[in-house]
Amino acid sequence: MSRIAHEGFRSKVMSAEEAASFVKDGMSVGFSGFTGAGYPKAVPVAIAHQAKEAHAKGEPFKIGVWTGASTAPELDGALAEADAVEWRMPYQSDPQMRAKINDGSAYYSDVHLSHGATYVAQGFFGPLHVAVIEVTAITSDGELVPSSSVGLNRTYLAKAEKIVLEVNSWQSEDLLGMHDVYYDIAVLPPHRKPIPLTKPSDRIGQTTLKVDLDKVVAVVETDASDRNTPFKALDEDSKAIAGHLLDFFDHEVKQGRLPENLLPMQSGVGNIANAVLAGLLESKYENLTSFTEVIQDGMIDLLDSGKVTVASGTAFSLSPDAAHRVNDNAKKYRDLIILRPQDVSNHPELIRRQGVIACNGMIEADIYGNVNSTHVMGSRMQNGIGGSGDFTRNGYLSGFVTPSTAKGGAISCIVPMVNHIDHTEHDTDYLITEQGLADLRGLAPRQRAEVIIENCAHPDYKEQLREYVKLAEKMANGRHTPHDLSSAFSWHVHFLANGTMKMN
Amino acid sequence: MSRIAHEGFRSKVMSAEEAASFVKDGMSVGFSGFTGAGYPKAVPVAIAHQAKEAHAKGEPFKIGVWTGASTAPELDGALAEADAVEWRMPYQSDPQMRAKINDGSAYYSDVHLSHGATYVAQGFFGPLHVAVIEVTAITSDGELVPSSSVGLNRTYLAKAEKIVLEVNSWQSEDLLGMHDVYYDIAVLPPHRKPIPLTKPSDRIGQTTLKVDLDKVVAVVETDASDRNTPFKALDEDSKAIAGHLLDFFDHEVKQGRLPENLLPMQSGVGNIANAVLAGLLESKYENLTSFTEVIQDGMIDLLDSGKVTVASGTAFSLSPDAAHRVNDNAKKYRDLIILRPQDVSNHPELIRRQGVIACNGMIEADIYGNVNSTHVMGSRMQNGIGGSGDFTRNGYLSGFVTPSTAKGGAISCIVPMVNHIDHTEHDTDYLITEQGLADLRGLAPRQRAEVIIENCAHPDYKEQLREYVKLAEKMANGRHTPHDLSSAFSWHVHFLANGTMKMN
Repeated sequence: MSRIAHEGFRSKVMSAEEAASFVKDGMSVGFSGFTGAGYPKAVPVAIAHQAKEAHAKGEPFKIGVWTGASTAPELDGALAEADAVEWRMPYQSDPQMRAKINDGSAYYSDVHLSHGATYVAQGFFGPLHVAVIEVTAITSDGELVPSSSVGLNRTYLAKAEKIVLEVNSWQSEDLLGMHDVYYDIAVLPPHRKPIPLTKPSDRIGQTTLKVDLDKVVAVVETDASDRNTPFKALDEDSKAIAGHLLDFFDHEVKQGRLPENLLPMQSGVGNIANAVLAGLLESKYENLTSFTEVIQDGMIDLLDSGKVTVASGTAFSLSPDAAHRVNDNAKKYRDLIILRPQDVSNHPELIRRQGVIACNGMIEADIYGNVNSTHVMGSRMQNGIGGSGDFTRNGYLSGFVTPSTAKGGAISCIVPMVNHIDHTEHDTDYLITEQGLADLRGLAPRQRAEVIIENCAHPDYKEQLREYVKLAEKMANGRHTPHDLSSAFSWHVHFLANGTMKMN
Repeated sequence: MSRIAHEGFRSKVMSAEEAASFVKDGMSVGFSGFTGAGYPKAVPVAIAHQAKEAHAKGEPFKIGVWTGASTAPELDGALAEADAVEWRMPYQSDPQMRAKINDGSAYYSDVHLSHGATYVAQGFFGPLHVAVIEVTAITSDGELVPSSSVGLNRTYLAKAEKIVLEVNSWQSEDLLGMHDVYYDIAVLPPHRKPIPLTKPSDRIGQTTLKVDLDKVVAVVETDASDRNTPFKALDEDSKAIAGHLLDFFDHEVKQGRLPENLLPMQSGVGNIANAVLAGLLESKYENLTSFTEVIQDGMIDLLDSGKVTVASGTAFSLSPDAAHRVNDNAKKYRDLIILRPQDVSNHPELIRRQGVIACNGMIEADIYGNVNSTHVMGSRMQNGIGGSGDFTRNGYLSGFVTPSTAKGGAISCIVPMVNHIDHTEHDTDYLITEQGLADLRGLAPRQRAEVIIENCAHPDYKEQLREYVKLAEKMANGRHTPHDLSSAFSWHVHFLANGTMKMN
């Protein structure tokens, strides 16, 4: 049976190449897609092809590429490789896109994921010419069944002048009922009302996306899987990090500062975050809930075990195996998982109200608790801040995790001063490396430095950090946050020159 | 007539010295007080005296000093001067307290003002032994009429083991009815509900503070005025900054991105913020509202003129003249002004929902839009972040203002890299100096640098900034946020060595 149950849409079916022709040089295009899930599989490649043809003729062809978050080679990769990207927003993690951003040929605005939707709705990023949105199906009422991510789709469908839909039959039809699309959040101030959600299991919207058929210029049928990258096997560092976090939870429960079943968990994207979830699976905790951004393999295991009773997010980010498991059992998972627009999943109001426990990865932290999530050695963009700021700034308890070293020990992830700040000292409650946990609550900067160095730094770098502290105390113009500004970045400078942060 | 209309409280009246004796070495004490308003006038001085006596005998005497925000010489000043401060939270601006923090003899945690209350309620800062709270009166029902600030009083009264009240007859009795104390916000997760406030004029709580009489160990009567520092006369720079902001509003209204009567305004504390309010008074705008932290002179003028119909905050910060005006006409102002607990006035949920326009002062910004609100030359604490993070991170439109230079031109307030980051590039929508406004929305870092240098930097520093950009583009390991980490702080280092940031 066709996935397109409405004649008005069926009459607009065409090839990806025909659909791509609605996108012209200079346009802003809003694509679906969040952490490699639910992105359009065919039209972006066709747009990239169009750009290459234009460039071959000496004609300009660059567009604004707006998405939910990161996508896949068929979108970010193809458009970057074709040099078709003028401006990228709000998050990316594709090697080719990253290369274009860092060689200066593409502009990138690294935007809090909860801000993306409001800024688009408020008109701060200018007009949106075309939306290219993957869906699972089109209902007989002419509404859209979302696929494996919701992201900014609601916003892009509402704002775009023209709409291209990709109907992907690889996505399970049983996803219908998993999504919760809240529409009142699109209301602009001064007319906004409280969001009526008080726990992760609350459903406050509708299961489908609305679309104005008159704006739909093309429907393209596809049958390709999401990106679905495998996670790395759990290593000792990840297990140690998960262990320190669980010990911390035990302590907080004992002190009466966390309930027995904790509070809704958020966990960042990637291998370490996934390891933390695996740690929870082995733990004594029961009746957990999750209010997070991305549903990863570890969360599926927690749902299967019954340890987590409900997981709320905006997208999947699964290994190929887990993706098959979810697709084959979507009828079961649609009662356990709720996918929402990212301006709901990441909303400060909901994160603060529910008391979400935030735990995100980082590139490096400094001795005073400032955190760098985005930049390598001052200037190079890695991926972006994503939702880490939304959760960290509003969580009940917010922290960051990383192994204490990188590049085989040549880089210390605890440094005198981070080379870029995405999360300030004001927002970091705890830091964890495989070495241990630093509980920073109620500590002044000089006290934090002691705890971070002793508990989190790698033994190879402890003495070098202590030496910096001594130097800083001597050179500083004040003893609140002692720094020697002449050498605060000397570790990074040394690495750039010598390939290691080790001075001796 | 006595301000203490309840016999149970009257029987506990004693001298400040007797009341102070409940505070012992090592205790944590929660004081009322916010921006020099509503702080206890007598007991802190008596505690300081007690500390000096102990020190004279060679005995230790240091306490944790928790407040709403900054206070006055009779509190921060006296306790700092007596070396009686072990740990200070969440904000201060007193010269003597600042000196102790910067010479390393007092620890200071610089906490978002919306976080203070939740962290105390969550038990993250340990037990609170004593609360010392100024009130205007005690009702016959045994409830407390707040005075010129609400701050963290609700939280401190609830958490403290013992309570000392100061009943200050300098405060107008007609303040009764001005306050709105919302109690449901004290509920901890997972039981928190939406806060039912959708506009600045909404009253959602009660006009008085509850207190457990059994915990009240002392009531002290006072009759002293608040700190009430005069504002500086408007200078040309402040007028120019206000002008640029108003031009920006005009532009946004024309583009349909702001309503005709704008959105609820927040403005930071101090002379420039006050000048911005004065600018609004001269403007064409009508039917304005304010959802802010502190009610300053400029706001009183706006209320008097009818341009602002309601102002919601948590405290006054007035000149002596304006304080008299408010006190003499409290019956009128209690219908126009609403003072709330600071976890309501600064709540992310309410700021985001109402679409508050945030405008705060800063020490310096860098060419990529990162902002330093707290530190001087890397290590010295000035005041603290206050509520600027609460409003900036959640505002509809968030920005910062400063003159382009300080110290007679020896310091550029636009630098290659700020020496401390309180607000990241992700959160800054606009920057304003007397030179002009930089609209940073939708710009990548390299584009921001161009606009900030051309629109905001002082002409004396433009070329030097352009030279840094050129050097950074050459030295950087990536062209997303080009930095030369070896010289990113060279301007600050040069100032520390030579008293100026001018290199030539």
